[in-house]
Amino acid sequence: MKEIVAQPLTPEDFAPFGDVIERGADPISINAGMCERHHDLARLDIQGGATGISLFDAEPRALPYEFNLVERHPLGSQAFLPMTMAPFLVIVAEDKDGTPAPPKAFLTQPGQGVNFYRNTWHGVLTPLESPDGTPGLFAVVDRIGDGANLEEYRFLESFKVVQF
Amino acid sequence: MKEIVAQPLTPEDFAPFGDVIERGADPISINAGMCERHHDLARLDIQGGATGISLFDAEPRALPYEFNLVERHPLGSQAFLPMTMAPFLVIVAEDKDGTPAPPKAFLTQPGQGVNFYRNTWHGVLTPLESPDGTPGLFAVVDRIGDGANLEEYRFLESFKVVQF
Repeated sequence: MKEIVAQPLTPEDFAPFGDVIERGADPISINAGMCERHHDLARLDIQGGATGISLFDAEPRALPYEFNLVERHPLGSQAFLPMTMAPFLVIVAEDKDGTPAPPKAFLTQPGQGVNFYRNTWHGVLTPLESPDGTPGLFAVVDRIGDGANLEEYRFLESFKVVQF
Repeated sequence: MKEIVAQPLTPEDFAPFGDVIERGADPISINAGMCERHHDLARLDIQGGATGISLFDAEPRALPYEFNLVERHPLGSQAFLPMTMAPFLVIVAEDKDGTPAPPKAFLTQPGQGVNFYRNTWHGVLTPLESPDGTPGLFAVVDRIGDGANLEEYRFLESFKVVQF
């Protein structure tokens, strides 16, 4: 089985796939200095539907993590905002003539979310187990509406993601 | 100084002010049963601008908490999605002829966010101190764009929020 070494998630490495939603160097100070606003961090791209907020509650996984399924959403970007400080695994793949290229994997730091651009191949939501039993809870900002907004692709051979 | 006893945050009590964004009784099962999608939990209402995702990093406060300032946003709803499991304080007030009525205060449970409806009077973001030094980090879904989207009101007398 092919191994993928998970990399730390950085905006530079993730740029082809989406936005890393994290605190930056130049926030706006609001509320008399009591709060920093890191402004407008995601390129939302919702086609022919509404933008909405949902919660995803996913089963935490462990590394090494095996998978063969990726998916993408032709009609909208999809942002994952962790509601805990536990890290999660972000699997993505470039597109090559309509099917995914070999995937990459990133591991988040506490306080990082991601926004997958519309049509980015990505793995299903994979929070990682933490010793204190933190749930795999995320706020998701994506497209609400009818239409064929899910395309799945199953690789013939599974991949195994291992820790860097 | 007038005291306000913080109440547990429930959708019923919060209904005049906005949405409680929390897991519900009837999620959609996705990802082969590994994830529950609690679908479309907030009534976003963005006027004449774009919907965006920002991060707010606020100084955690302690109870009892004194305040005399509330604000509202005439051009858009504003959702606060905590990126930690620490509770936060939600202060709101009904409108009475253009100024806020006496405020109410709610205390969240882990995994609860809120979406203030457009034009709801509310206090500034007030995460609460936790023993392990958790930061006051939130993802915020609100209006991105120019325009007069902030109205502030300062009560003549401060209020003091105390624990229920």
